[in-house]
Amino acid sequence: MPQTPRVQLLLTGNELMSGDTVDSNSATIARRLAVLGLAVARKATLGDDREALVTELMAMARTAEVIIVNGGLGPTVDDLTAAVVAEAAGLPLAEHPEALAHLEHWCAGRGLPLDGANRKQALLPAGCAILPNARGSAVGFALDLVVDHGRCRVYCTPGVPGELATMLEPICEDLTARWPGLTAVDILRLQTFGLGESTAQQLIADDLAEDRAAPWPPAVDLGFRAGAPQLEIKLAVTDPAAGSARDACLARLEALFGDHIIGRGDATLAGVLLDLLRERGLTVTTAESCTGGAIAAALTRVPGSSAGFEAGYVTYSNTIKTRTLGVREETLAAHGAVSEAVVREMAAGALECSGADLAVSVSGVAGPDGGTPAKPVGTVWLAWGDRAQLDTVCLHWPVERTLFQTMVAALALDLLRRRLLGLPPLPRYARQRRAG
Amino acid sequence: MPQTPRVQLLLTGNELMSGDTVDSNSATIARRLAVLGLAVARKATLGDDREALVTELMAMARTAEVIIVNGGLGPTVDDLTAAVVAEAAGLPLAEHPEALAHLEHWCAGRGLPLDGANRKQALLPAGCAILPNARGSAVGFALDLVVDHGRCRVYCTPGVPGELATMLEPICEDLTARWPGLTAVDILRLQTFGLGESTAQQLIADDLAEDRAAPWPPAVDLGFRAGAPQLEIKLAVTDPAAGSARDACLARLEALFGDHIIGRGDATLAGVLLDLLRERGLTVTTAESCTGGAIAAALTRVPGSSAGFEAGYVTYSNTIKTRTLGVREETLAAHGAVSEAVVREMAAGALECSGADLAVSVSGVAGPDGGTPAKPVGTVWLAWGDRAQLDTVCLHWPVERTLFQTMVAALALDLLRRRLLGLPPLPRYARQRRAG
Repeated sequence: MPQTPRVQLLLTGNELMSGDTVDSNSATIARRLAVLGLAVARKATLGDDREALVTELMAMARTAEVIIVNGGLGPTVDDLTAAVVAEAAGLPLAEHPEALAHLEHWCAGRGLPLDGANRKQALLPAGCAILPNARGSAVGFALDLVVDHGRCRVYCTPGVPGELATMLEPICEDLTARWPGLTAVDILRLQTFGLGESTAQQLIADDLAEDRAAPWPPAVDLGFRAGAPQLEIKLAVTDPAAGSARDACLARLEALFGDHIIGRGDATLAGVLLDLLRERGLTVTTAESCTGGAIAAALTRVPGSSAGFEAGYVTYSNTIKTRTLGVREETLAAHGAVSEAVVREMAAGALECSGADLAVSVSGVAGPDGGTPAKPVGTVWLAWGDRAQLDTVCLHWPVERTLFQTMVAALALDLLRRRLLGLPPLPRYARQRRAG
Repeated sequence: MPQTPRVQLLLTGNELMSGDTVDSNSATIARRLAVLGLAVARKATLGDDREALVTELMAMARTAEVIIVNGGLGPTVDDLTAAVVAEAAGLPLAEHPEALAHLEHWCAGRGLPLDGANRKQALLPAGCAILPNARGSAVGFALDLVVDHGRCRVYCTPGVPGELATMLEPICEDLTARWPGLTAVDILRLQTFGLGESTAQQLIADDLAEDRAAPWPPAVDLGFRAGAPQLEIKLAVTDPAAGSARDACLARLEALFGDHIIGRGDATLAGVLLDLLRERGLTVTTAESCTGGAIAAALTRVPGSSAGFEAGYVTYSNTIKTRTLGVREETLAAHGAVSEAVVREMAAGALECSGADLAVSVSGVAGPDGGTPAKPVGTVWLAWGDRAQLDTVCLHWPVERTLFQTMVAALALDLLRRRLLGLPPLPRYARQRRAG
């Protein structure tokens, strides 16, 4: 048996073929296996077609030592995985006592009868091993296919994302037991805001070009995961002896990206800001026009956010800016709603109304309509700070409405984070988009 | 050539294997091809490995008449698609004049020099056809692979979603020209809120069982696309003569799902509500506690929402409920923040503060903490209506925090939609979760 198995995924389900479901399960599997140092070499996706699935599985087994099948474990006639794997393995289907006990337990816990459809889920290839499922009724299982190159371990997993996620743990244990040569990969993730992936890569390339004495160590694997609004940077090390090389790379990235790094692991802008507020016993309020509640919603998605966030105002019209936040009609008439003077008065009004310690306010043109030559779509003013000092900035960020709202809301959180930490006021994104 | 080609997809990119990117492009392709009556039979996904890609493409061509390759068209050395397809076709790579003109035009429009990396994108299999790209620099192309069963048409498309989407139009034109037997499928989509997929399927099954005189016509294809918060129901007809059968099915679904149908096509709860408000010259305001701005954010994601939505209040703490919306301290002390009396006063306060015609208010326990035996996590009170009449309901909807916020925000919009249309006040979801 090779030291590192070749891994392939077989994804099943008509909904994956029609485009009605976007497959995120294979990403979940890949990210979990990466911690064991295993990469997925190939994925095949097929509808609920028994013959095609058997053919694909048998072909796949010729070039893989591990296959993870996802989907097709449910109670309906479309759920073919057990039959497919049994046929490929040349085994009969038999009612598995452990699987039946799991289904009985699951049904009993919900006061449901164990009907024929549920009972079908205990019909598995004879002699397979059951994969525990703490989250649902689906019965996952594993067995070996005997192939020319020896054996191919097949794990069959459910399509429900939460059930899949819990089942990956026993699968990883089984993999580690069968391939003792697998080494845990130490993956350090940095969360950044205010840099695009290509900018981040260019900064690293420039740094390497300038500093030829310190090439990037091959033992440290560098990866990026671009999302809106954050960019995740990963440093992966397989060899425990490479720990100091990883630390050197980390220091290098920290020097390069500096204040754009918001935290490690799963850190989010809203979570980091709320942590800072909690540490300092402060609260923040929001006064939103074009972001329309997106800043407040980002904050309140974080459990426990009430400690740092009590009040948000969505003041979409001029009338409400005046009525709710006390923005003066003269200011609106003289400067327009998208102006420095108005975001200052919005922030001051929100501080006054809420009694919060800090505020951020936003007024802009999210589009697609509403732009003018002086204030085109994508123009946005922000004000942020406390009663003693409000800072402001104007940006021009002409992207699609929803992305504009997401990015501006994230920027608003970052401006507050930067202020609390005493960092330079603007991230790179914002500096590049500064208007006026 | 068969009347309907067998279609397979080859998806490329290391980011698809590592789990750093979730593939939504294959869903975009499948949904566009469905309109031509074409189904995707199989997908294979591989990293940026030239040899493996050539092997896969050649194997795939043996069982397909159409292959759509997605990804690998960019300027970097990892972008291998042109070289892979050229090798599989036994053709040299050559600079394509039309591709070069596209790249020159694209760079000139951005004031960029046409550097070597960009110019690489014009190196394509000799004699291929260019697929127009109005959205970006990537050069898509098509050619025929000669295989045992005749010819296999290969379309190579970019990984950037917006560029892929525009390129599917010329691909569909080319497919229609090459397979004149393809018939456009007429797909009618109904958007619903307040029903799960399994409930919807059960209602249809029950209806068919009760009414055996009217079986479901085989010419009408029924599909579901479950999302949070909406469930999409699709009726697809290939045979133009089946139009009246489709109309009968539509009437049947309308009778079954009734007021849970919010609209057709891409209708959203927020969009439908804003349309109703605009028609009637009304405005709405929001007073949110546990949803934390999610209702306001859903409304303001819709372009032009300012006509019907001017003011939203996120009142997360008791103090702010009192200070901003005038909720009485005695009411909070007597009933607690999650209570009928408080949501009534929140809604009344929001109407008063904003001058809006309608209001919806929400106060609940989103979790994971903060539950009590009397008000466990998932408990939520809503009030909605106008100055003349506010209705209220209490639900128990114990799901994960973010899903809770999404579903409750959607319900708030639906309660207002139902009121404006004079429909029964609660959708099925809410009736089943009614507390107290």
